[in-house]
Amino acid sequence: MKEAFAIGVDIGGTNTKFGLVNHRGEILARGGFRTDVYAEADSFADTLCTHLQPLIEAYGKNVIVGVGIGAPNGNYYTGSVEYAPNLRWTGIVPLANMMQERLGLPAVLTNDANAAALGEHMYGAAQGMNDFIVITLGTGVGGGVFSNGKLIYGHDGFAGELGHMTVVRNGRKHWATGLRGSLECYASATGIVLTAKELLAGNGESLLRDVRADALSAQSIYEAAIKGDALAAEVYRYTGEILGQALADFVMFTSPEAIILFGGVTKAGSLLLEPVREHMEANLLPIYKNKVKLFISGLGEADAAILGASALVWEDRSLQG
Amino acid sequence: MKEAFAIGVDIGGTNTKFGLVNHRGEILARGGFRTDVYAEADSFADTLCTHLQPLIEAYGKNVIVGVGIGAPNGNYYTGSVEYAPNLRWTGIVPLANMMQERLGLPAVLTNDANAAALGEHMYGAAQGMNDFIVITLGTGVGGGVFSNGKLIYGHDGFAGELGHMTVVRNGRKHWATGLRGSLECYASATGIVLTAKELLAGNGESLLRDVRADALSAQSIYEAAIKGDALAAEVYRYTGEILGQALADFVMFTSPEAIILFGGVTKAGSLLLEPVREHMEANLLPIYKNKVKLFISGLGEADAAILGASALVWEDRSLQG
Repeated sequence: MKEAFAIGVDIGGTNTKFGLVNHRGEILARGGFRTDVYAEADSFADTLCTHLQPLIEAYGKNVIVGVGIGAPNGNYYTGSVEYAPNLRWTGIVPLANMMQERLGLPAVLTNDANAAALGEHMYGAAQGMNDFIVITLGTGVGGGVFSNGKLIYGHDGFAGELGHMTVVRNGRKHWATGLRGSLECYASATGIVLTAKELLAGNGESLLRDVRADALSAQSIYEAAIKGDALAAEVYRYTGEILGQALADFVMFTSPEAIILFGGVTKAGSLLLEPVREHMEANLLPIYKNKVKLFISGLGEADAAILGASALVWEDRSLQG
Repeated sequence: MKEAFAIGVDIGGTNTKFGLVNHRGEILARGGFRTDVYAEADSFADTLCTHLQPLIEAYGKNVIVGVGIGAPNGNYYTGSVEYAPNLRWTGIVPLANMMQERLGLPAVLTNDANAAALGEHMYGAAQGMNDFIVITLGTGVGGGVFSNGKLIYGHDGFAGELGHMTVVRNGRKHWATGLRGSLECYASATGIVLTAKELLAGNGESLLRDVRADALSAQSIYEAAIKGDALAAEVYRYTGEILGQALADFVMFTSPEAIILFGGVTKAGSLLLEPVREHMEANLLPIYKNKVKLFISGLGEADAAILGASALVWEDRSLQG
């Protein structure tokens, strides 16, 4: 029997990355292109095909099990990208069908956080775990929840929107949803910058006062913090406090074995992880305390999204013939 | 083939109820006794056996598939009641094993909210649903969550403690857990009385001023509200607001088809349900709006707990031989 392969595609607001992956999670070929130059989903899909065709021809269509796509607002049940605020395409885009028609290969699609959870389950720290949660901390905050050994999609495919759950009643107003006090308002890269701006509105000294307002980012705040800047350190401590409290809620909901943090914001390492752990534990009932494993994803960030999308192919029983 | 039966046992802090149930959810025989006179789990288990033996002999041991038990802090994985604050027995009580040894019948155990969810799935409004949530609103607040057609127990059997999730950051301190702002602090019968006391600390007129402080209850507040008492009505409106906001969070977590409210507090009917619905919808992302069915359990309260516990037997594949 010949080795089988899956194609993993990660669609981000700025860049699209793809790779050909074997069952062991080795990326044998890869590539990428800009997402944001395509105003229409059709031209995007055409371009993606143009990039994938040489891979498919090189390895042979008959050994490629399918194409897995991780996309913002991707709905597994419908195979569509639905009203993604970070993409230029509007409305409901049946991207899985569009790729299937163009390539003649099965295509499955989910959102980026679910893809990350599938990737952790197949290749990362969650191997062998039936119950765990992945939180993606990037421009936004997403969630992928495994229970009873399966990803929770919910009744209509939109489960796991953990970033939109309320952590501060009547708190910050979300820039896109208008809802108040959601986790994303605080624990996303965007939220971290808002926290810094709030603190900078006070009188405290800070290296961040030398950073131009439009250059203020989770990254620049982190850099100031490791240089010993107290205000910048407080930004991450506060972020960790809010996130830790939210994680305690999530633990009491699904009682996971582990929570894995994923994405750009986790570059802050222990600066974020320590207050998260402290405030998660402080808000748990005794029956949950000191049990839940909490860590930052060990999958290389560049590869994890492709691996996660490819895992969607391997975990989809309908594609396993 | 002879008809098969399950025994359902509902253990409450005050009373224990049991019944012999067929697969159609008909309770063919029933009984009950006081829980709180038994200081030791052993004497409780002996008494429960004394009550169940005549049923078992009357119908025949060979047609009884097993005994399902719903108990506060019941852990399905271990079959134990663990540190139940509302029972006089302390520590970890391996009640399923104790009953199995005494009766010579398989016994399975879960917490009361999970039993309620199993009952709704088998006999109630959630028949045929794969994704739904049951919220029990009694002295405390509990949750039973179905996803992908299965009850979520989580890694260690303690999933679904929705009453202990935070809804008001730095809010009311819980009388037993010490955690601040949990749903149970507001939406339980206990929390409803606290809300009334807070409002009565003001100057507003109210029929409740004629109720002795120790007679103030969710029931007496409800009765005042239906007599047109504005303060009492405000208690339920506020309760509904908090509960509705919490339900919005739950919807974004598991994307259920329905949320079913269960237990004594739901006697308030639309007085509670209308503000819950309003504030749940107001706090949902557009993709979830006007989709989630929300209603009060239609199972008769006296029977539902027994049916739920018996459903545990039917849904436990290990007992289906």
